[in-house]
Amino acid sequence: MAELIELRKPYLLFIGDAEDTMVAKTAAGIAYWRPEDSLGQMRLTPDAVDIGLPDMGVVEAANAGAGTIVIGLAPVGGSLPESWLLVCVAALEAGLDIASGLHTQLGEIPEIQQVAERTGRKVFDVRVPPANLPCGTGVKLTGKRVLTVGTDCCVGKMYSALAINAELKRRGQNSTFRATGQTGILIEGAGIAVDAVVSDFLSGAVEVLAPDNDADHIDIIEGQGSLFHPAYAAVSLGLLHGAQADGLVLCHELGRAEIDGGYPGYAIPPLKQVIQTNLDLARRTNARAKLVGIAVNSSLLEADQAAAQMAEIEQKHQVSVVDPVRTGVAALVDYLEKNI
Amino acid sequence: MAELIELRKPYLLFIGDAEDTMVAKTAAGIAYWRPEDSLGQMRLTPDAVDIGLPDMGVVEAANAGAGTIVIGLAPVGGSLPESWLLVCVAALEAGLDIASGLHTQLGEIPEIQQVAERTGRKVFDVRVPPANLPCGTGVKLTGKRVLTVGTDCCVGKMYSALAINAELKRRGQNSTFRATGQTGILIEGAGIAVDAVVSDFLSGAVEVLAPDNDADHIDIIEGQGSLFHPAYAAVSLGLLHGAQADGLVLCHELGRAEIDGGYPGYAIPPLKQVIQTNLDLARRTNARAKLVGIAVNSSLLEADQAAAQMAEIEQKHQVSVVDPVRTGVAALVDYLEKNI
Repeated sequence: MAELIELRKPYLLFIGDAEDTMVAKTAAGIAYWRPEDSLGQMRLTPDAVDIGLPDMGVVEAANAGAGTIVIGLAPVGGSLPESWLLVCVAALEAGLDIASGLHTQLGEIPEIQQVAERTGRKVFDVRVPPANLPCGTGVKLTGKRVLTVGTDCCVGKMYSALAINAELKRRGQNSTFRATGQTGILIEGAGIAVDAVVSDFLSGAVEVLAPDNDADHIDIIEGQGSLFHPAYAAVSLGLLHGAQADGLVLCHELGRAEIDGGYPGYAIPPLKQVIQTNLDLARRTNARAKLVGIAVNSSLLEADQAAAQMAEIEQKHQVSVVDPVRTGVAALVDYLEKNI
Repeated sequence: MAELIELRKPYLLFIGDAEDTMVAKTAAGIAYWRPEDSLGQMRLTPDAVDIGLPDMGVVEAANAGAGTIVIGLAPVGGSLPESWLLVCVAALEAGLDIASGLHTQLGEIPEIQQVAERTGRKVFDVRVPPANLPCGTGVKLTGKRVLTVGTDCCVGKMYSALAINAELKRRGQNSTFRATGQTGILIEGAGIAVDAVVSDFLSGAVEVLAPDNDADHIDIIEGQGSLFHPAYAAVSLGLLHGAQADGLVLCHELGRAEIDGGYPGYAIPPLKQVIQTNLDLARRTNARAKLVGIAVNSSLLEADQAAAQMAEIEQKHQVSVVDPVRTGVAALVDYLEKNI
């Protein structure tokens, strides 16, 4: 079995010198979704973003019980600043592990590697999947499984999964968010960056990520990409097969007409087609797969426009349509509790 | 741009001490499909398989103009025998490059690495994809493209592609076989092992493998896996999107009822469903994608049974059905020349 990421909580969230809230969004996301795991923030300058946690240094955080310093933002310019390297070394010396979402692998930097070895602390580069992942088996896994799928990248698949998991927990259900991307992994403290997995092992990685579980346990698995994305559809299909989803939640941005990020001519297909294709392919590994509902990101629209469009989609597809930010996901969870 | 495998021809085909023709099948395949590139065979014992080429040592082969020694068979037991290591070192010293399909990466073995560096010779581990592959773009590529797709693994996707390419060449067409697996790469002397590519770069790898070309040039791209395979469907979809195929050739083994290799309960779906799903998904990156025909492997059946079943499939799906071994692929190439 491959060794999976499992971060020691609570976290010290590294903000560095980020003055832009967008740059600090992973730290802010962790503080939002996991307040109980977010012990403090570490800012290198007074002008850095304040995400509302107590300011701490690495020694102070370690003394207060922190397990891991989380570096979830990229340095300006790309290469690792000397000041960040010093923070990493000091964090390890103070007894913290490091979890990083950087492209640069911190665990491969000799200074960090040496101190980690000497102190026995761990460095998790969460973009790097575990070694020795198996191929998929397709053997039916126990427990319930829900996967968020999308019309495109960046339409709310992670957010929707986190919101559904939070609502299930609020209702006392036994559920787990299964992270498949770096931000989700840093929030949950566990997961596999599936887009970095070698193709042959993709569905196997998802089987490892969401293994056999209790009959009443619900895995809420974070989707990636889209079956209709000209670059990343393979990732989406490996996820779909490996997830063996009982329920799919379709995520979509209202007002987006074309695949984002430079794919001219690639229209977002009609929702009906996206739903049917996902269901058809999902049923290869779980014949019971059904659509739970649709989660839209309506942030491009005014509230009344958004409500009108959501009502129209609901009418057309005869499923619940929510905006996790504006309406919450209760309607999806109502369906889940009854039908999955 | 990633550096692609390009083997120096002709080849010295290493047979080692293999006494089983199945073990030597890659060498035999190269000799069959590329007689003009197959200069000689190197056997370590008199009982080793004779694939009908002149026996040569590495120095003799180099003197006769060989460019590469090809190691296309796995050693018994898995680990590299001392005698093979000595052959590799001697081959490099004699001026040959090495191309290997072994799981063990020869280029990572210090003795081999050092001699390769000193002699300036290359070691190609063909299971390893090139570094720095890009993500897919989905931008329409020029030239014609045909992809073999399958109902399962090991149903003749490589063989069919090689046979179609050979028939096109026989007719004077400008075509190229694009290899996506280790055996195909060793036969063609070029290609990318797509199942070893990180998921995010899968369709991008295929765009690199089969780049823009002359309007009348035809790429015959080797497919992998099946959209209906519970472990490997992601590889198949990345290939399908990256290939931008104008024409698909469906490959299928007559008499196979279930996905091979330990996937109980996974029936081979009806051909109609496999065809339609492949076409629907292929049309995302090439709206003109169509079915060229069906290539079956009928080796489980007697000739008359095979002919009857092929006629039935032809009738039902209204496309040409061939067995590349028993009937040749002329009917598929007739269609290709007229319609693609």
